[in-house]
Amino acid sequence: MACGKCLLCRTGEAHICQNVKIIGVDADGAFAEYVVIPESNIWKLDPAIPQEYASILDPLGNAVHSVLAGEIAAKTVAITGCGPIGLFSIAVARAVGATTIFAIEVNEHRRRIARDMKADFALDPSKNDVRAIVMEQTDGLGADVVLEMAGHPSAIRTAFDIVRRGGRVSLLGLTSKPISLNFSEDIIFKGITVQGISGRRMYQTWYQMTALLKAGKLDLHPVITDRIGMRDFAKGMERLKTGEASKILVYPNGTQ
Amino acid sequence: MACGKCLLCRTGEAHICQNVKIIGVDADGAFAEYVVIPESNIWKLDPAIPQEYASILDPLGNAVHSVLAGEIAAKTVAITGCGPIGLFSIAVARAVGATTIFAIEVNEHRRRIARDMKADFALDPSKNDVRAIVMEQTDGLGADVVLEMAGHPSAIRTAFDIVRRGGRVSLLGLTSKPISLNFSEDIIFKGITVQGISGRRMYQTWYQMTALLKAGKLDLHPVITDRIGMRDFAKGMERLKTGEASKILVYPNGTQ
Amino acid sequence: MACGKCLLCRTGEAHICQNVKIIGVDADGAFAEYVVIPESNIWKLDPAIPQEYASILDPLGNAVHSVLAGEIAAKTVAITGCGPIGLFSIAVARAVGATTIFAIEVNEHRRRIARDMKADFALDPSKNDVRAIVMEQTDGLGADVVLEMAGHPSAIRTAFDIVRRGGRVSLLGLTSKPISLNFSEDIIFKGITVQGISGRRMYQTWYQMTALLKAGKLDLHPVITDRIGMRDFAKGMERLKTGEASKILVYPNGTQ
Amino acid sequence: MACGKCLLCRTGEAHICQNVKIIGVDADGAFAEYVVIPESNIWKLDPAIPQEYASILDPLGNAVHSVLAGEIAAKTVAITGCGPIGLFSIAVARAVGATTIFAIEVNEHRRRIARDMKADFALDPSKNDVRAIVMEQTDGLGADVVLEMAGHPSAIRTAFDIVRRGGRVSLLGLTSKPISLNFSEDIIFKGITVQGISGRRMYQTWYQMTALLKAGKLDLHPVITDRIGMRDFAKGMERLKTGEASKILVYPNGTQ
Repeated sequence: MACGKCLLCRTGEAHICQNVKIIGVDADGAFAEYVVIPESNIWKLDPAIPQEYASILDPLGNAVHSVLAGEIAAKTVAITGCGPIGLFSIAVARAVGATTIFAIEVNEHRRRIARDMKADFALDPSKNDVRAIVMEQTDGLGADVVLEMAGHPSAIRTAFDIVRRGGRVSLLGLTSKPISLNFSEDIIFKGITVQGISGRRMYQTWYQMTALLKAGKLDLHPVITDRIGMRDFAKGMERLKTGEASKILVYPNGTQ
Repeated sequence: MACGKCLLCRTGEAHICQNVKIIGVDADGAFAEYVVIPESNIWKLDPAIPQEYASILDPLGNAVHSVLAGEIAAKTVAITGCGPIGLFSIAVARAVGATTIFAIEVNEHRRRIARDMKADFALDPSKNDVRAIVMEQTDGLGADVVLEMAGHPSAIRTAFDIVRRGGRVSLLGLTSKPISLNFSEDIIFKGITVQGISGRRMYQTWYQMTALLKAGKLDLHPVITDRIGMRDFAKGMERLKTGEASKILVYPNGTQ
Repeated sequence: MACGKCLLCRTGEAHICQNVKIIGVDADGAFAEYVVIPESNIWKLDPAIPQEYASILDPLGNAVHSVLAGEIAAKTVAITGCGPIGLFSIAVARAVGATTIFAIEVNEHRRRIARDMKADFALDPSKNDVRAIVMEQTDGLGADVVLEMAGHPSAIRTAFDIVRRGGRVSLLGLTSKPISLNFSEDIIFKGITVQGISGRRMYQTWYQMTALLKAGKLDLHPVITDRIGMRDFAKGMERLKTGEASKILVYPNGTQ
Repeated sequence: MACGKCLLCRTGEAHICQNVKIIGVDADGAFAEYVVIPESNIWKLDPAIPQEYASILDPLGNAVHSVLAGEIAAKTVAITGCGPIGLFSIAVARAVGATTIFAIEVNEHRRRIARDMKADFALDPSKNDVRAIVMEQTDGLGADVVLEMAGHPSAIRTAFDIVRRGGRVSLLGLTSKPISLNFSEDIIFKGITVQGISGRRMYQTWYQMTALLKAGKLDLHPVITDRIGMRDFAKGMERLKTGEASKILVYPNGTQ
């Protein structure tokens, strides 16, 4: 919920509003029985879009916002971290013309879903030499675009190692730990651009998602791993922790 | 052949060089038995790309340059004129995330190829109410991007009629006739951007084409309508005029 | 007054809203004794800005929007038409790093003010060979940026004649007459970008104007040619027509 | 000296060439009696530019490249580190429409020159509360653009502390030490863009510098603190170390 009054809100950057309030953090969240949100935050689902996608449009919007935060067509893309936003980003990047997509993820369940989302490579950084593979596949240049969606220090380290000179690193994954970088080698000599990605341009991404989904450009089903009734809530949470589940649809009245 | 010395050449815009010489216009062209061109104009075909595509990469590069001359992902695109560059643009636009693609062309043969290239709509401006159809399909807004590749006054007229407010019209089709526009209504109130598109950023489009072709993002086969031996040259030219043929591959030693 | 509901309004382009209502055209204007406008259209003048500037900030905003609609630093700029917005554009272009500024205007009073605004050249297209002068001053290239603010067919013609290859023509001046262009020569071969400029990004230009004015970057006094009491309204209008007056401040209770 | 063959060189990014050779590092440098450089690296000084500026155009080009690496007009700018490139950046930023310029530098000699270059604030981070002052002067937002030209860990720390949400940090200052950042707080939540700046687009900056200097937009004299004969070379080096000297012109045959 953006304030609507600050410079950011007034110049098209409400997603990084000075006074943003996050539902579930600064205000009651959607695990409550009822939730009050501003009218402007409501978006009517286009009837052509599968209804079950309604519950995953917010993170899909983050993926759209991240992938389209710079040039992407005809480029190689690496995604570090395959939580739901990372997985959605595979689909979005593919839909808008990325050529080779590297998904980098330690959890085997998530790597499997990444493969189902049609990543060209699903690499395990604990076993694969990620840098060597990316370099080999990109004529020694590195990836044009890296989307960092893990928030883990070693994933962030990898992001800077595999991006090519002049490339883009978009940072979305949060971490509470300070990260140490060699600015000269990692950023300056390579002449890269690093973007902090927070939230999403709400309306722009609503329009973009709607357009891509209606055109049949995005198959998101592999990310929806579970459909459960409310009574199985605790079990679902357990599967989220192990990575077996990615997005879980919870049906208040059972999945019939 | 760019001069390499002018401001344009030196600032990454050699494709609109002040002193450009066009092979076939300002210098002997490739219908000669031998042709001498600067080393820098030669590009080695990646072995993973079908060899017969080598002869159509130059116009494909024009299509890539036109489509990517502005934002295109998640946008609706109309292409007026379905000669080879228009047809290639359908494939490129689709590959980089255009959602609905309108191909607008009077010649029925070309419309058929446009359909084979997977345009969503292949409209005949002599019969269809193009503006009404585009408006209906775009919630009354108009097309986000219009690529004008016919060079015919009525096609140019259509381009400005169907582009949405804030949209882009990229002009590539050449015409020797002056065109009359109502600048206030057609350009200013709509706040559109009109681009003159000439040639292509040579290396950038080589890289982009190579990446898209190697990733299997572009199926160009429907545009190659004929494969003939040199002896059938005149017949091929005839089929070009009627629009039955689009790109004709001429094999000096026969088609085996 | 933008609708706030259309795609344009929701994606930062409210200045070209599908359903815009212009005060003075679609709703009662500010010549009425009282005028009702939406709260969001009100902007509080920073106390550091001279109060008399309050009445000219709207056209200044148009000038800021036009000049900054593309790259401008270290570029040569030609402005065709020296009404108030054209004159303000001279000041803005100079403030943001334009190098040589050509003001092109038939009315001698306006040319004089253009000179007072520190245009490098104030050319009379009825007497000067504008194209020859621009070419001579730009090493034969033409102007990097042309801001068309006259809306007269011959000024629009000039705009396309003097812009350099790869340059920008921003069209703001309105004309009810259709204009005839040779698209191939005037737009395509030159690879230029033509922008329709309508209104202004309201908040963004408020912020930009405030910043530039507070920093003392803009001296707009030469444009305010007259300060009159309400009783001299008719006389003021007369002086506007001849071009002797540019912006007239009307004081309801006399100028004492 | 760029290789001319890599993807970067071929797509307008020769300044971050994969195989760049730096004169003075990878090849004999200009302290030698004779130096051989490629013809394409030579630029003929426009006769309208003061001859003594010839020797400082390379770092001026770095400043132009850094300042113009993103939007700058009507923006507040902070520069951390006032070596020659930092000092030139003050002049360039002012010339292209920056509104308030903060120069941040521990050395008092350099702060004095920064003041002579017309920085609005010349702050000593060892004494002033830089963050508090920047926040106070920017309505609590922070600086729109920060150019980091010190390469010192605490200056880099300051850069991230004072940039506003949605702002830009351009990193040019080199450091051999790893720097630790809290990516979530410093980059992601603020939604900033961080750029690695290396070298300069050679021709583009030649053109930009020439245009700005010929238009009298840049007064660089305060940076040239010393003019010495070759015999005083050692003394000059001493003054560089203390910061008393910034750019020293060395005349091979004495300064007569």
